[in-house]
Amino acid sequence: MMKIKIAIVGYGNLGRACEKLIKSRSEFELVGIFTRSSINKLDDLYNTIDVVLVCVGSSADAPVLTPKLAQKFNTVDSFDNHNEIRNYLKSLEEIAQKSKKVAIASVGWDPGLFSVARMLFNAFLPDSSVQTFWGPGVSLGHTNAIKNIEDVTDAIQFTVPQKETLKKVRLGKSVTDKSKHKRICYVVAPQKKQKKITSLIKNMPDYFLGYQTEVNFIERPEFNKKFNGVQNHGGAVIGADKTSKLELRLRTKSNPLFTASIMLAYAAANVRLQKEGRFGVFTAADIAPKYLFSDCIQVL
Amino acid sequence: MMKIKIAIVGYGNLGRACEKLIKSRSEFELVGIFTRSSINKLDDLYNTIDVVLVCVGSSADAPVLTPKLAQKFNTVDSFDNHNEIRNYLKSLEEIAQKSKKVAIASVGWDPGLFSVARMLFNAFLPDSSVQTFWGPGVSLGHTNAIKNIEDVTDAIQFTVPQKETLKKVRLGKSVTDKSKHKRICYVVAPQKKQKKITSLIKNMPDYFLGYQTEVNFIERPEFNKKFNGVQNHGGAVIGADKTSKLELRLRTKSNPLFTASIMLAYAAANVRLQKEGRFGVFTAADIAPKYLFSDCIQVL
Repeated sequence: MMKIKIAIVGYGNLGRACEKLIKSRSEFELVGIFTRSSINKLDDLYNTIDVVLVCVGSSADAPVLTPKLAQKFNTVDSFDNHNEIRNYLKSLEEIAQKSKKVAIASVGWDPGLFSVARMLFNAFLPDSSVQTFWGPGVSLGHTNAIKNIEDVTDAIQFTVPQKETLKKVRLGKSVTDKSKHKRICYVVAPQKKQKKITSLIKNMPDYFLGYQTEVNFIERPEFNKKFNGVQNHGGAVIGADKTSKLELRLRTKSNPLFTASIMLAYAAANVRLQKEGRFGVFTAADIAPKYLFSDCIQVL
Repeated sequence: MMKIKIAIVGYGNLGRACEKLIKSRSEFELVGIFTRSSINKLDDLYNTIDVVLVCVGSSADAPVLTPKLAQKFNTVDSFDNHNEIRNYLKSLEEIAQKSKKVAIASVGWDPGLFSVARMLFNAFLPDSSVQTFWGPGVSLGHTNAIKNIEDVTDAIQFTVPQKETLKKVRLGKSVTDKSKHKRICYVVAPQKKQKKITSLIKNMPDYFLGYQTEVNFIERPEFNKKFNGVQNHGGAVIGADKTSKLELRLRTKSNPLFTASIMLAYAAANVRLQKEGRFGVFTAADIAPKYLFSDCIQVL
């Protein structure tokens, strides 16, 4: 069997996780790892790359880099900026149509796996209000929002599903968005400023205002000890109507490793789509299960 | 918006559930309900039917009727005889290719929804042994196996997942097939025969031998009171490796209503495939989520 030749662009947590997985799975071969500054070297490898895994940040880098890569390569990314996703897909579609490449976009666990669950649950339980819960796990967006407050030395924010709300959703009851999660913050900051910082966090619109928010101040050594390298995450998609209840649950000790594993499955799908002569942009919505798992009939 | 015009073939529990749902959902229109004996009348309605829902039994009727229907109509069925599924798909494929119809086969919750979960979990957690649990719910096959024993007046068999085995699978540990479920039987039979019947049940190969099996004898009036109209079912697909755990859970109070709801979602998919000019046989493995749920980008 021919190995699937992969290049990684971006070498943060996700890029490293992809590297680790590729090296452990015999069906893949790692051609090289590239960063924003070395990306031009990819061109020399044009004929030896089946798929490029785009592992750069979704906020600034991916919207620029992925379309650029899709001019010459088949790509898989886990772009997760929900507000920008339409524009992102549109720009990729134009380029992949022109270059006749397969660009698989936004395939991590959310968007990605959880998107598939939302589509299926909505289709099979049309009278239910399908809800997504995230965590317990770190939210980078909320963490950064706290870090941006003056006098904050360091911070981390855990998103935790509210048990009472989970119960209601499982019973098919409607819930408000802000009742779904509580937000637990750990902050390093001078004692004199803590009262003010607490107030700034709890009243921050969109991010914390209206949520049950817990602010804990801790010392730097304890912060490092507790939270360095914390990568666990998870979540659930739940739908329920009067007679039936569906729930998909994820728990992972390594958010990057599980995201990388999904990206690799879609890299295999990418190659299968290439073989069928298909091109353009694909999300999780556009890809039938058979492209992800070659032995479908066995598990039908 | 044009309504999707549906004919139902078969009028048992599943056919009735389809009828009920179609009448409650504005995007569908019920053209008619047909049985094996009135199936020829379908021909008169050739131009007014978008999809035929095949709601006859999987063991004897579907293997004969569905290919016959696919000669003239687009079909959706929930064929669930795993041993026969390859032959079934093959015979349908030949006919649907010739008639240029869309035959969507084996789409209930298992096979169907659970098949999709198995494919995705296997793809995303390739180092895990993905396991399926059924129940608590009635197994028709096991119920009939008991009913076929001499002197048994009536019987029902509940398949119940073993909690200890569920725990092991969630921890990524390997388990044996027969440790996954216990089998709880309620039997109506003359007292004199009960000892012998118990032994026959517990030692029945494939069905009960090697499983934890509980045999309860009860009186006819209590049997009717407890079990008439019992339609609840459910199950779970679970995969776990060293870092991540995925679980899909279903609980339904009405097995037929939930199966019907899935069939209707695939009926909508059937029409979308027709519009793209596609034909042939499709299982859950072959159908991308976008065909099931029109508003994909909203839930991406």
